Amino acid sequence: MKPDSNVSPLAPEAFPQLPEIAGVEAAIGRAGFYKHERPDLLLIRCAPGTRAAGVFTTNAVGSAPTDWCKQALAATRGNARGLLVNAGCANSFTGPAGDAACKRALEAAGEKLGAPAREMLAASTGVIGVVLDDAKIVSALPRMDLAPVRWPDAAAAIMTTDTFPKGAGANCMIDGVNVSIAGIAKGSGMIAPNMATMLAFVFTDAALSAPILKTLLKAETETSFNAVTVDGDRSTNDCVLLFATGQAKVPPIADASDERLADFRAALSRVLADLAIQIVRDGEGATKLVAVNVEGAVNDASAKAIARTICESPLVKTAVAGEDANWGRIVMAIGRADEPVKKEMIAVRFGDLYAARDGMVSAEYDEAAMSTYMKRQELEITVTVGPGIGRARMYTCDLTKRYVEINGDYRS
Amino acid sequence: MKPDSNVSPLAPEAFPQLPEIAGVEAAIGRAGFYKHERPDLLLIRCAPGTRAAGVFTTNAVGSAPTDWCKQALAATRGNARGLLVNAGCANSFTGPAGDAACKRALEAAGEKLGAPAREMLAASTGVIGVVLDDAKIVSALPRMDLAPVRWPDAAAAIMTTDTFPKGAGANCMIDGVNVSIAGIAKGSGMIAPNMATMLAFVFTDAALSAPILKTLLKAETETSFNAVTVDGDRSTNDCVLLFATGQAKVPPIADASDERLADFRAALSRVLADLAIQIVRDGEGATKLVAVNVEGAVNDASAKAIARTICESPLVKTAVAGEDANWGRIVMAIGRADEPVKKEMIAVRFGDLYAARDGMVSAEYDEAAMSTYMKRQELEITVTVGPGIGRARMYTCDLTKRYVEINGDYRS
Repeated sequence: MKPDSNVSPLAPEAFPQLPEIAGVEAAIGRAGFYKHERPDLLLIRCAPGTRAAGVFTTNAVGSAPTDWCKQALAATRGNARGLLVNAGCANSFTGPAGDAACKRALEAAGEKLGAPAREMLAASTGVIGVVLDDAKIVSALPRMDLAPVRWPDAAAAIMTTDTFPKGAGANCMIDGVNVSIAGIAKGSGMIAPNMATMLAFVFTDAALSAPILKTLLKAETETSFNAVTVDGDRSTNDCVLLFATGQAKVPPIADASDERLADFRAALSRVLADLAIQIVRDGEGATKLVAVNVEGAVNDASAKAIARTICESPLVKTAVAGEDANWGRIVMAIGRADEPVKKEMIAVRFGDLYAARDGMVSAEYDEAAMSTYMKRQELEITVTVGPGIGRARMYTCDLTKRYVEINGDYRS
Repeated sequence: MKPDSNVSPLAPEAFPQLPEIAGVEAAIGRAGFYKHERPDLLLIRCAPGTRAAGVFTTNAVGSAPTDWCKQALAATRGNARGLLVNAGCANSFTGPAGDAACKRALEAAGEKLGAPAREMLAASTGVIGVVLDDAKIVSALPRMDLAPVRWPDAAAAIMTTDTFPKGAGANCMIDGVNVSIAGIAKGSGMIAPNMATMLAFVFTDAALSAPILKTLLKAETETSFNAVTVDGDRSTNDCVLLFATGQAKVPPIADASDERLADFRAALSRVLADLAIQIVRDGEGATKLVAVNVEGAVNDASAKAIARTICESPLVKTAVAGEDANWGRIVMAIGRADEPVKKEMIAVRFGDLYAARDGMVSAEYDEAAMSTYMKRQELEITVTVGPGIGRARMYTCDLTKRYVEINGDYRS
């Protein structure tokens, strides 16, 4: 296991102030999945009546905890009383033994919370291919005291190779009632020997049904967690869970498209996007945060496919690391996305500076201004690919020698 | 422009002995697309009656020379009298001005060969977005003397950032008649400011029709040039051209599936695969050549998609660079290929050493033996993903700090 990296140069100044969420308590513990002294367990208790929804990795291998969450949420129709998260062991690719270990850990955690295992959710992050040693968790649980959530500590307990804890929150209104949202996340690419990447847990005191939570979460994940990429590798354990404790007594709402949810939806969107971008800011070896905008595609899905190809092109990412406005590589990436584009309309812009326009190098191309812009820590790349109305925005980071070091030289 | 790199550690001992191809002559020249002293022009004359076929990049942006070749081959039904190749300028993303420059250069070259421009083929490799300066070519042509092909010189003239010239040849029989095949190629990833990647030109003295050449070339490209990947980035100028001069009087053959072509087809396949693997051996920063085999997929296309995901995963490629048998990352890559797999049947083998088997870490996993194997320069990774009959084999190289250096730090 490599020593923790230094804090990312793209890290936020400080951990944000997050609202307290009525009906949510937490306990931090150490099961000892890491040799060095650090918390690696997070137990969350949710008030009775809490509803939850999740989105999970599409990786076909998956993991015991993600399989468990999908089944539990289906079986209980989204009734959730708690969450158990461990760092240091992903419990992925571990077969039936991994499933059994996950279940035993949740039974012990549920007992502590006075809840049946099937109303407990689980998330694991860490080494792939090692069965979760649930005994370590079972023996740690009695030493863990539930209390009002200290968000920075909760966020720190789920870190693996993250260089800073990640949190975001918001206050909003549902039909005149104040509600709060608080979320934490971990992630920074994948890491040796093989860490599972991204976890996020978001809590609100609003009273919302599981189907509504699921609809909102799915929709807002598209433009947040599904709009960031560090290295294109997608882990076996990724999941985003949204819990609503119902302590804020909002009037019953039957439908996710109800206008009274507009403010909540916008707030949730901000929280998820904030957490997602913090993960890119902690991208392994990252020195620059890049937002890629695609305009003029045949539709939004096509625009997103082009944006993703640009964001994941090693040649684009290394050029950004070299502070080179290498628009030729961006044109190449647009061309290899296998999406319909109008060659003669292709334009590439860095900030407000046009590098290419109308399918050729731009007349106003200004090398000096361009290289000044490229020295920035946060970049905006905008491409036009045709006359369509399809748009997308994605975030990525640069590809540096440090990334190769972290992922290739960790033995030395 | 960065100085030439040192020769790749994976380079072959020496340039191979290639057969002479009756009906093919070449001239090397210098148009001056590079500041430093080096040949950057290759002119090939083919005997009257030569037939040609090509496969071209699927990059939607393309380039003037690839557009020209597609149109010319269609218009002449594969009649080709010559080929003009320049290094240093890709003439891609250059609009109508680039098309006109390409045509003028071919008119001048055709005049020298006594052939109409439409029977001339063109290939350019180098900077994207700069219109070809055909005047440089026109003034260089008179100084170029046609002579029997010196293959190492021809291969060297089309290099950009390649660290060694690439050639492969074979002799075979068609219906009792001896025929020869000789091919050259260039490629080593893409490079700053933005080089187009891969070119290959293959010549035979066999008398074969253009449709037959096209069928054979398309089929054999699938398992050669379309089965290698350095960084997943696909250039705007890639092309493979196959010329048959007809000097070896083989009996007329009407159909590509004619059994009398079996030996030729096998020889062509060997030549293309040899050239393709040499390109991976020259992959930017490469220190290891990796063959990835996928077995048990639902079909060959699915197997190839999985193989490609493994070959292009930055985490797999950096682990190989770190000489780590990181099977967890390979399992992750299998899972994110979005192809049908049977989790409980997944196996990962390095050479003959099993790391994972039946969806779990392998019982016979031997750390010591494994790390000895990973020190090799050439690796075989074989994965089983299910009970199917789909198979694929792809080649890639490792991802090293040198790759980032070449593609990111070239300014320093």
